[in-house]
Amino acid sequence: MIVVEIITIGDELLIGQVVDTNSAWMAVELNKVGLDVRYKTTIGDNEKDILDALEKAFSRASIVLVTGGIGPTKDDITKKTLCKYFNTQLVFDEKTLKTIEEVIGRLHRTMNELTRFQAYVPENCTVIQNKMGTAPVTWFEKNGKILVSMPGVPYEMKWAMQKEIIPRLQKAFPTSGFIQHQAYWVKNYSESMLALHLEVFENELPQSIKLAYLPTSGLVRLRLTGKGANEAILNQRMKMQRDKLFALLSGNIVSEEDNALENVLDKILRDKKLTLSVAESCTGGKLASLFTVIPGCSEYFKGGVVSYSNEAKIRILDVNATDIDKYGAVSQPVVEQMVLGAQHIFQTDCAIAVSGVAGPGGGTPEKPVGTVWIAVVYKGKYRSLKFHFSQNRESNILRACNCGMTMLLEMLQPFLCMNFGGEDT
Amino acid sequence: MIVVEIITIGDELLIGQVVDTNSAWMAVELNKVGLDVRYKTTIGDNEKDILDALEKAFSRASIVLVTGGIGPTKDDITKKTLCKYFNTQLVFDEKTLKTIEEVIGRLHRTMNELTRFQAYVPENCTVIQNKMGTAPVTWFEKNGKILVSMPGVPYEMKWAMQKEIIPRLQKAFPTSGFIQHQAYWVKNYSESMLALHLEVFENELPQSIKLAYLPTSGLVRLRLTGKGANEAILNQRMKMQRDKLFALLSGNIVSEEDNALENVLDKILRDKKLTLSVAESCTGGKLASLFTVIPGCSEYFKGGVVSYSNEAKIRILDVNATDIDKYGAVSQPVVEQMVLGAQHIFQTDCAIAVSGVAGPGGGTPEKPVGTVWIAVVYKGKYRSLKFHFSQNRESNILRACNCGMTMLLEMLQPFLCMNFGGEDT
Repeated sequence: MIVVEIITIGDELLIGQVVDTNSAWMAVELNKVGLDVRYKTTIGDNEKDILDALEKAFSRASIVLVTGGIGPTKDDITKKTLCKYFNTQLVFDEKTLKTIEEVIGRLHRTMNELTRFQAYVPENCTVIQNKMGTAPVTWFEKNGKILVSMPGVPYEMKWAMQKEIIPRLQKAFPTSGFIQHQAYWVKNYSESMLALHLEVFENELPQSIKLAYLPTSGLVRLRLTGKGANEAILNQRMKMQRDKLFALLSGNIVSEEDNALENVLDKILRDKKLTLSVAESCTGGKLASLFTVIPGCSEYFKGGVVSYSNEAKIRILDVNATDIDKYGAVSQPVVEQMVLGAQHIFQTDCAIAVSGVAGPGGGTPEKPVGTVWIAVVYKGKYRSLKFHFSQNRESNILRACNCGMTMLLEMLQPFLCMNFGGEDT
Repeated sequence: MIVVEIITIGDELLIGQVVDTNSAWMAVELNKVGLDVRYKTTIGDNEKDILDALEKAFSRASIVLVTGGIGPTKDDITKKTLCKYFNTQLVFDEKTLKTIEEVIGRLHRTMNELTRFQAYVPENCTVIQNKMGTAPVTWFEKNGKILVSMPGVPYEMKWAMQKEIIPRLQKAFPTSGFIQHQAYWVKNYSESMLALHLEVFENELPQSIKLAYLPTSGLVRLRLTGKGANEAILNQRMKMQRDKLFALLSGNIVSEEDNALENVLDKILRDKKLTLSVAESCTGGKLASLFTVIPGCSEYFKGGVVSYSNEAKIRILDVNATDIDKYGAVSQPVVEQMVLGAQHIFQTDCAIAVSGVAGPGGGTPEKPVGTVWIAVVYKGKYRSLKFHFSQNRESNILRACNCGMTMLLEMLQPFLCMNFGGEDT
């Protein structure tokens, strides 16, 4: 198996100013073409540490992908340090300058000496033109191994990986085997209960297939990873394990898309030509934002109300004020009126509503922090459930989103069993 | 300076199923007590790679913080591997079992053999009870260096770091010097224009102070990092550089809180006892969710409308249908009616409204992808601006949120100058 190492460079990653979302995205894309990320290293904008990391990476990986540290400012030293490591110098490249001028022109900006300096590139590398920014991508080869330096700006990196780097890596390593991941969203089990239930299954797995448990907010995501040189045999092996898992977990597998739940729902809603709206109290817009970041979601997503105050629930969603007084905002009657209110005001086929105590404040003995009511409606059918989540605000928000989406998923997918983790009342 | 290395363990981090948000959070907390993260290493649940990473980390760092791989399931091997590395064995710990029973009880679950096995701990370490989950935190010392293994579940890790690990590290390394970060949100400059403007300033910085540029969606975040053994001298030095920066950038510094813009606004709104609502089209709930994840935001945040469809704009926000027909949904008249609609329906002092073409679809020659109108209102005063962002949907959403928040910030903070990056019309 070809070993890949990702090196991310930047002080901002080490002091916590920026969360590295790049390397997760890169890993997913590399996996699709049979490339396996085995190491990830993060260092600051510091020559000695960069040189050490390059040395170590070249000693253990065949492909080294470096992100960051190639901006126009003085703190970015990756390009210079790569020259030192590969024993070469910076030379001016006319073609790169042209690309930079195009990029700058498109942004309605003017060139300056720093952006012009971006056209200096290491002499003994292949330059890949970056159509999304001013920092060129550079590709080095050494003893049959490859190093690629690319920008850390996410959309520039993504463009370069998809359009240029991955196709070239596939050409350079045509024989790298096959990797398959299968994911299963499982409800009704804690991580350890699920592991006990699957103990025999796990012990009987062939060497080439690995099982992992990923507890996500409100559900467990199972992952089977198979590796092999022959794609047909690998497919067969994975299919066999899948059948076994379905026999063991039957109605508890909510989805086998290796995708976030919002993407699973996105696909179903488009296929079925259904529309969706949301009414959110404690999730505060998070649920809507999960859908609206997906390109083209306006095909089915019509809108949402973040009804943080009781007045908003009453005025916009037509919730009965007396019910709020009598049962409280976090209650079955209120969440049911919220979901019908959203369905009505946005004129949608489906709707999800959430009302809960996210914490850390706002809890009472009867409704402690983590108490969340969720309702879903699909045409004339609706359902509401009460959940008890955790003490943690962020986790409660994410769990409520996931549980709301799962409830709608179950309404839209007839093969699933009924009894979800909440209390049905 | 004490060197810290973070090792994150888990296959899910290498295949991209999970984005590592832990290490950024840890770095921020460690920085506050003068501890500097210099290396971050990520490896899978694989004995050889874990042992190699431990070896390397102990050779270059004084504090090694390990997260992940200590769940109850078979794929988690960190605990066993630590025993191997420290040449010790697992022993049963009564006190840890008690803690696990408490945790399981609180979650209304029952013990099973896997959760019981969590009470086995390495013999020659200090066990720190984990009150948030079943995996104990373990603390090892070797040649004056320290290794701590903790859960990868974010809220368990955060609890352990804050309550137990950081206080103990401060005791173990009382003399570690001081680190100060200062952050400045700067508008109206691209990264390279700002760097040229600050070239002399940067060249004159003392050795102990570093300047970094962090282009964020729509703004540039500048960061000055100073290190020193004497806190008073460090303070003085940093203050001098701050004064220089203010003289150079005057009205373009939007905030000097080392915090996301939503946290900056959160503070101001609470201090001034003002209320806020939002009306979102292309940002789709993201803007609301930035505020609602902050504990206690209900003090000022009253709600939002995600008016993805024109009907929702008309029906809920009282936007004039004729204006939508005449000017389009992405236009000044519509965004101004949206912001007033939100202010009215939620009865708030302030409101932010966004309407734009996030892309990749929906662009026209007159309104290409990236065109965004934003309006803010503060009591009787309002303002709207047009922006031209990028081709990238996610980046457009984030830039629109940041620019909307900046516009409100400028209305609430009198010391700032007027001319923002958009086109004032």
